[in-house]
Order: sequence, then structure tokens, then C-alpha cells
Amino acid sequence: MEIDLMDKILSLAKRRGFVFPGSEIYGGLQNSWDFGPLGVELKRNIKAAWWDRFIRRRPDMVGLDASILMNTKVWEASGHLKKFSDPLVECVKCHKRFRGDRIKTEDGCPECGGKLGEAKQFNMMLKTRLGATEDKASEVYFRPETAQGIFVNFKNIMDTERMSLPFGVGQIGKAFRNEITPGNFIFRTREFEQMEIEYFIPVPEKDKDWNNYFEYWRKEMLEWISSLGVDVKKEIRELEVPEKDRAHYSKRTVDFEYAFPFGEEELYGLAYRGDFDLKNHGETSGADLKYKDPVSGEEFYPHVIEPTFGVERSILAAMCSAYTEESAPTAEKGEEETRVVMKFPKWLAPVKAAVLPLSKKEELSSVAKKLADDLRNDLFVDYDETQSIGKRYRRQDEIGTPYCVTIDFDSLEDKKATIRDRDTMKQERVAIAEIKSYLLERFKEQ
Amino acid sequence: MEIDLMDKILSLAKRRGFVFPGSEIYGGLQNSWDFGPLGVELKRNIKAAWWDRFIRRRPDMVGLDASILMNTKVWEASGHLKKFSDPLVECVKCHKRFRGDRIKTEDGCPECGGKLGEAKQFNMMLKTRLGATEDKASEVYFRPETAQGIFVNFKNIMDTERMSLPFGVGQIGKAFRNEITPGNFIFRTREFEQMEIEYFIPVPEKDKDWNNYFEYWRKEMLEWISSLGVDVKKEIRELEVPEKDRAHYSKRTVDFEYAFPFGEEELYGLAYRGDFDLKNHGETSGADLKYKDPVSGEEFYPHVIEPTFGVERSILAAMCSAYTEESAPTAEKGEEETRVVMKFPKWLAPVKAAVLPLSKKEELSSVAKKLADDLRNDLFVDYDETQSIGKRYRRQDEIGTPYCVTIDFDSLEDKKATIRDRDTMKQERVAIAEIKSYLLERFKEQ
Repeated sequence: MEIDLMDKILSLAKRRGFVFPGSEIYGGLQNSWDFGPLGVELKRNIKAAWWDRFIRRRPDMVGLDASILMNTKVWEASGHLKKFSDPLVECVKCHKRFRGDRIKTEDGCPECGGKLGEAKQFNMMLKTRLGATEDKASEVYFRPETAQGIFVNFKNIMDTERMSLPFGVGQIGKAFRNEITPGNFIFRTREFEQMEIEYFIPVPEKDKDWNNYFEYWRKEMLEWISSLGVDVKKEIRELEVPEKDRAHYSKRTVDFEYAFPFGEEELYGLAYRGDFDLKNHGETSGADLKYKDPVSGEEFYPHVIEPTFGVERSILAAMCSAYTEESAPTAEKGEEETRVVMKFPKWLAPVKAAVLPLSKKEELSSVAKKLADDLRNDLFVDYDETQSIGKRYRRQDEIGTPYCVTIDFDSLEDKKATIRDRDTMKQERVAIAEIKSYLLERFKEQ
Repeated sequence: MEIDLMDKILSLAKRRGFVFPGSEIYGGLQNSWDFGPLGVELKRNIKAAWWDRFIRRRPDMVGLDASILMNTKVWEASGHLKKFSDPLVECVKCHKRFRGDRIKTEDGCPECGGKLGEAKQFNMMLKTRLGATEDKASEVYFRPETAQGIFVNFKNIMDTERMSLPFGVGQIGKAFRNEITPGNFIFRTREFEQMEIEYFIPVPEKDKDWNNYFEYWRKEMLEWISSLGVDVKKEIRELEVPEKDRAHYSKRTVDFEYAFPFGEEELYGLAYRGDFDLKNHGETSGADLKYKDPVSGEEFYPHVIEPTFGVERSILAAMCSAYTEESAPTAEKGEEETRVVMKFPKWLAPVKAAVLPLSKKEELSSVAKKLADDLRNDLFVDYDETQSIGKRYRRQDEIGTPYCVTIDFDSLEDKKATIRDRDTMKQERVAIAEIKSYLLERFKEQ
């Protein structure tokens, strides 16, 4: 039944223009996905809201946008070149390869039954060459995480921004991982986007100092998750990652797991990384990545709390939480039918309002188009005059449009239109001249 | 002198946190650049304004966000695999390689004087491997332009959006090109971001039909350029690309050249591509990429007008046009000094207002911080209490902050603050309670 839900969301995503299979007309490309006209709006709304909340509105945060391609020495120092790998086993007979930690090697190849070789480490970074020569020196990697761009710019940010501890640096950008088994729609893809914060704190004197910051960010993350329309109590499980599964430098890591239709899986992560990264890069590069206390003059490597948010996983969780099926009367005949509604929070909905003339007659469509043009200066608006009004409501429900404005023949007399609320389906008659302020008021409320 | 201007902008960009050399602490990475706390705001403001203007506010446009990694068949059909290349010559002695079209091969190697070999075609797409196998089939390319993501999704968009001609699809995203000679700061980099529109039009009956659309977009592009603070008459040259330099399928191409300090170089491009792309992908993939006229039922490949905008070049042009040196009295002594001001249009300025208490005394900073916190809900605000007021004005001028709000000791009595205008340097005394609406009003004006 839950798997069924995934199919429904995938189908709706494609049918309504949220997400299309990547390179589809050429048979796709190994679980890559393209965001359609509505998906790109979801994505933009999420990134803009995140940036506003965590960067622009906070005096203790600044933003950054580092290159995806970085000097290979970055990955040497960070440990990614050596350790960012999955174990792989190869069949000696058919030469297919499999994840060593997800297969019983004594059983033989699941494809041909052949003998499996020993597990080898397979680095997950995507490699390419820059420049015209073909030697080893021209090899570079696409970043597998955005975080390192922040650490290597720590001195530049200190020199230009005069921040004092605690403060954070946030970044949104693409990262690439050569996952052996990508899958579950947009949940695990080789190309993905992260929203990441490195929050620098003073060297903790006592254990609780860092944990206070950690707890602060834990709550911030939960509030953000809730703003996506996710029911945190029902749909989120916080997993304290046990010591044996944590990186050796991390004293605490919490995974925020979301109840996806295919199981509880990681949505976001929060990690305390100590001074591991800055110290490593400082010592390897020789650059001064220490913080100088403006009062005591003491110099030290700050410690780091790292909240990480996946963009595509945010979208997937928001879509799963928004997806609703309910029984409702049809628009035309009053019979009951199953209504599919994406109950996105209003700020997140890709289309804010739809303007629908009851018929294609010019007298109605001219009024409706004029209204749509006027609303479009302030809101993302859909204008639709095709098909029956029932089908048009159904479309707007499926894409999660909070308000439908219908212009009918009475509108020509009383200069009013009907505004239908997506969630309650209640209809209200409002003067056309006041519809814009009526809607803007409701979008402010949230 | 003009080269000198480039140095000044580069230095200001680094000193004030607009742009840092990529991977700097490890010696950089071949002309890669990271956008610092102010640069990322410029970038975000430009992308958001472009999206708003060309996608959200227009009923004839929709957005898309396709993957960077695409099926290799896309590049076979588009011609990139065969033709997206530069001629390269290699020195037989030192094996260094050079652009064949920019070097006199008879002269010998510019590095060691050795003999140069024959020019070979060097494909400019970055290549990588996906998955765990190492055969030819695992090779994929990073897109060298965003446009193809739109063409291969044409059917998906037609199926979900019911647009009728003319209509356009817009996209913002990264692209990668293995340029042999990247350079000129952020002008030519291997990793860059495009804002691209494919505007689909009916099959032109007469020559002027397509040219009317072309002219329409020419004017739209000039208006957008002007909105960046560029003086179109003085700083832009429109170059009609002659037939021999155009792609064979293009009937007209205009390059918009900007007078950069290092010379007049391409800022944006506008091309009429006929039905080349859709036809190619339709015929190669077998997918139905034709448009069906809703009235006549006729099926055909629409023609395409393609306005392309570079994000980094937009930033560079905006910075060059904004950079101003003028003689001005110092804040403290009334002497004349050279004032450097970035006269960004208000909407583009990374910081909208700075709140500056005259001294660090708690009675002033508490009032100033309260005001800054209140403004921060609506505007990106800088709070600064370090150094002399003169130095702080200088900093805000150099980062292009339109308004500085100074809280002085009189403020404690009269509950007013001084608002200084970046361009006129005129100061106005405004009640603290009214500063927010005063500023918001001025940001609406633009």
C-alpha cells in the first residue's frame, strides 16, 4: 500500500509537470530526473525560503557559493580521496560489480551465479580532466559535498566579514556522487543539491557547551521541517547515530529520518565535527585558518556544528506529506468522487492562484485575463480556460494551488468572482477589484 | 588605464567579499572562482530578477530545471560530440598544447620554440564515468549548455502545460566547458551558469515573421541589460554575426558585446535557430516532438528564438558599470578624498541598508541593534559598530549599500536617525519608527 503511494506520487509528478525522467526521449540516464515547470517552482521556493530564514534574516550567518570543481588537494586533506568509497565485489565470470556490504559474497554472483572476487574500495567521486593535456595532474573531481568549499574559504570570510563567534556560513549548490545503486525516484541520485551550514563555535570548555549549540540547531531543523508541511511528530524519527557508525571526529550525529513510502530513510543530518576540518586544511595547506578572539587575542581552530539539508529530499518529503486523497462531491453533479489534493503550505505551492473563466466566451475570458495579468505582478498565477470547470478544479487540486478564482456570467453584472479554497473547498464571492488584496492578505497569514 | 580598472575591481571583489579565487589556500584551480558573502547575494538577486521577469510574470513562459548529466545520445543528436571542439596544436618538443586558431603555427612553440604539430580537434565537453564499470558505455558528459535540456523535454512540457504558440521555456543552471584558455577573472571559466530561453514560434510564412519575434527579444534583452545598471548606449555594441560565422541553421545571430576593461567581448547572445534542434531530436530519438495546432490540427516542428544570458558575465558587467571613483569630502575632517562607490541599482545591491551606531557605547548599540533586527525581516541589512564612521561609510560605499542609517547621541533624545544616500551623500533625519517604511518606499520606486 505504501509502495502504491510512491507510484501515485511518481505518476502525478510526471503527469502534472513536477518531475520528468532525465533524458527520457533517449531512454533516460540511470535514475536522473529533470524538474518540470511546477517542480522547478517547488525547488526555487524551498531554496529561497531556506536562504531567507538561515542566511538573510540572521545577523550571525553569511552565504557563500563556491565552485563545484576544486583543487584535488582539497580532497586529499579532507580524506575524501582515500576514504569516500564503497566496497565493491566483482564477479570473476561475468564481471558485473555489486556493493560488498549489501551482498553475501559466499553466495556467488546474483546475475550469473559465478564466483565473486574480494571486495575492493570504489571511490564515489566523479572524476574528469581539465585542460588539454592528459596526464595525472589534469585530473579533478566534482565535489561530493558542498561543505569543503566553506572550510577552504574560512580565512577569506574572516578577512572580509569580521564575524565573531559563534557564526555560520551557509551554501546551496550541486554535488555529485557515483552511487552504485541510485534509486527511489529523486531520493538517491548521482547529481543532487545540498543546503548546508557550517556553524562555528568557540572551543567548548565543558561538554554541554557544544551540545547547547547542537540542541539549538536540532530544534531549528525540526522547525524548518515542519514549515515544509511535514507532521514532525508522526513522520519524523530522530536517530542518534551510535559511536561506531559516526566519523571518528564526531561526538554526536543525529539523522532526521522521514517516513517515506519506501521506508524510514535519512532526510537531513546534523553532525558535531569538532575542529577536524579547519585543522586539517590549516595544517595541510599552511594557511592560517585559526580564529583570533577579538578580546583575549587567543588564536584557535573553532569547532563546527553542521546542519545538512538535501534539496531533492525536501521536495520529496513535502510532496509525500502534501499528498491527500479524500472523498468529495464533484463540481458538476454533486456525486461523490475521490479528490486528490496536494496540500502544500501556501508559501511552497508552485502556483498561488488560478484564474478560471467559466466558459471560453470572449466576454468572460477578457475579464479573467485582465484579472490574471494584474495578479501576475505579485503572485505566480495560472490562467486556464480549457475543459470543464470540474476538470480544471481537479488539476489545480492536484498541483496544490491554494485558491481558484472563477469568473462566471454573474461576474459581468455584480463585478464579483468566486474564490474557492483548496483545502476546505468553501467558496466565497469577492469583488474583482478586491481580489488581489484578499489573496495577498491570505499569503501573509502563513 | 582600462586594464588598471580590471585590477581595481578584482581587488575590491576580493577585499570586500564578492569573489575569491577558487581553492585559494591550495594554490587555486585554473581560473576557478568562489562567490563570497556579497557575490552570492549579487548572483541570487540577478537570478531571481531574471526568473521573475522572464518566467513568473509572463503567461507565455514556463520554467525548467534539467539535470547537468544527460544521456550521451543527446550530444550525438545535437552535434556536440562531433562539432563542439577547438583546434589544438601540440609542440613536438615540449608537448604543450595551444589553440590552433590563435597561434601562428609556422612560428613554432611559444614556450620552447619547438616545432608545432598539425591542428587536431579537441572536444570541449567534460567527460566522466557513471557506475562501477569502466567500459565505454559508462562514459557521460557534463552539459556544455543548458539549451538541450529544454529541447529533449519539449514533449513533456507540451503534455503537461497545454501552451500554445508562441511560448517559451526558460532555465537557469550550470554548464561546463573545457576551455583551453580560461581567463579575464569571471569572464571565461570552465564552470559557469547560464540563464537561457528557448522561445518557440509558428513556422514563419514570410521572412519578417521570425524577425518580428527576433526584434521583440532583442529589445527585451536590451531592457534587461539596462536594468543591471549598464548604460546600453555607451557600453553595449550589438554585433550582427555575419553568415560565414553563424551556425548553418541560423538565419540571424546578434551578440551583445559589453565594453569590458579588457576589450569589447560577448555579454549575451540572441540566435534564431529555425527548427534544427527539435527536428534533430525528434528524428534521432523517434519521439514525437511536433507541435499540433489546436485549431487547424496541423503538426509541425516549431521554430526557435534563443536568448542566452551568462550569470557570471552579468555580474562582471554590473560590477564594471557600477564602479565609480569620485572626489568627495571625508566624513571626519571635510577634506577631499577619492571615494570609491559601487553604484548598483538598488534592487541589485547585496546589502540594502547598513545600521551604524556612532560609537560602541551600549546605549547607542542597543537602539541600533533593535532597529537592525526589525529591518532584517524585510531587507538584507548589515550591522556594523567597528572602526570610525568614515571608514564604515567607505566600506558601505565600496559594497554599494544604498542607505546608511546612523544612530548618534541625539537619537536618544529626538528618536530620530540620519539616513545617508549612497549616490548623493545627502543626509536626512528620519524618525526611527518610520525608517522601515521610508526605506521600503524607496526600494519600491525603482
